[in-house]
Amino acid sequence: MALELDHLVLPVADAARSIAFYARLLHLPYEGQDGQFSVLRVTPSFVLLLAPWPPEGSHHLAFAMTPDEFETTFRRIKDDGVAYGGSFDGVGRMGEPGEEAGARGMGRSVYFFDPDRHLLEIRSYTT
Amino acid sequence: MALELDHLVLPVADAARSIAFYARLLHLPYEGQDGQFSVLRVTPSFVLLLAPWPPEGSHHLAFAMTPDEFETTFRRIKDDGVAYGGSFDGVGRMGEPGEEAGARGMGRSVYFFDPDRHLLEIRSYTT
Repeated sequence: MALELDHLVLPVADAARSIAFYARLLHLPYEGQDGQFSVLRVTPSFVLLLAPWPPEGSHHLAFAMTPDEFETTFRRIKDDGVAYGGSFDGVGRMGEPGEEAGARGMGRSVYFFDPDRHLLEIRSYTT
Repeated sequence: MALELDHLVLPVADAARSIAFYARLLHLPYEGQDGQFSVLRVTPSFVLLLAPWPPEGSHHLAFAMTPDEFETTFRRIKDDGVAYGGSFDGVGRMGEPGEEAGARGMGRSVYFFDPDRHLLEIRSYTT
């Protein structure tokens, strides 16, 4: 079956703050409101819906990108002063990217938190 | 930037129960364990990681598929006796699929809950 993820809901305490954060660090464009949801475009077939609900627990989302985009995004994270780390439990240790398994195998990973302490990961594959 | 979602973590109270549920209803293959995570394959570049953590709050995930796959999956949901509905707040009303906005515009949607009351949606676009 050729199903794919179409959208998911991410609860955020302050939608404007999260829209700005995801635009600044991951360059996700804000496409406007769909009712109570703030729509962030990731790909032509996938959007993140930010919901103005009190976050219950921490979500974890990992985004894959090319090696060049990974380096550019990693530099942006550092320039922004966001705490990061090379492992899921190492945010704040800074240092080098880790080597972690993802959907397509091993690759370089950097972890950081969004404003609601949802754990984000950027990653890149060499193959 | 050509980033895409690589994986996400879905907390589940009983991994074996959820593996069976997602296999039965969405035909997501279980690829084995990655440490504490149970890996469910969605596409060649995206996996769901089921985490054996007490779910805090309800996640919402929507999966897009072709119209034929949508009909087959909808029939499977009905045959399985799972409560469903045509809107996010209508699970249990059964009836016909709704018309809802998704990443690629309007399309037919059916909503149902997974065993942890994460709200799932299957949807299909005609274009």
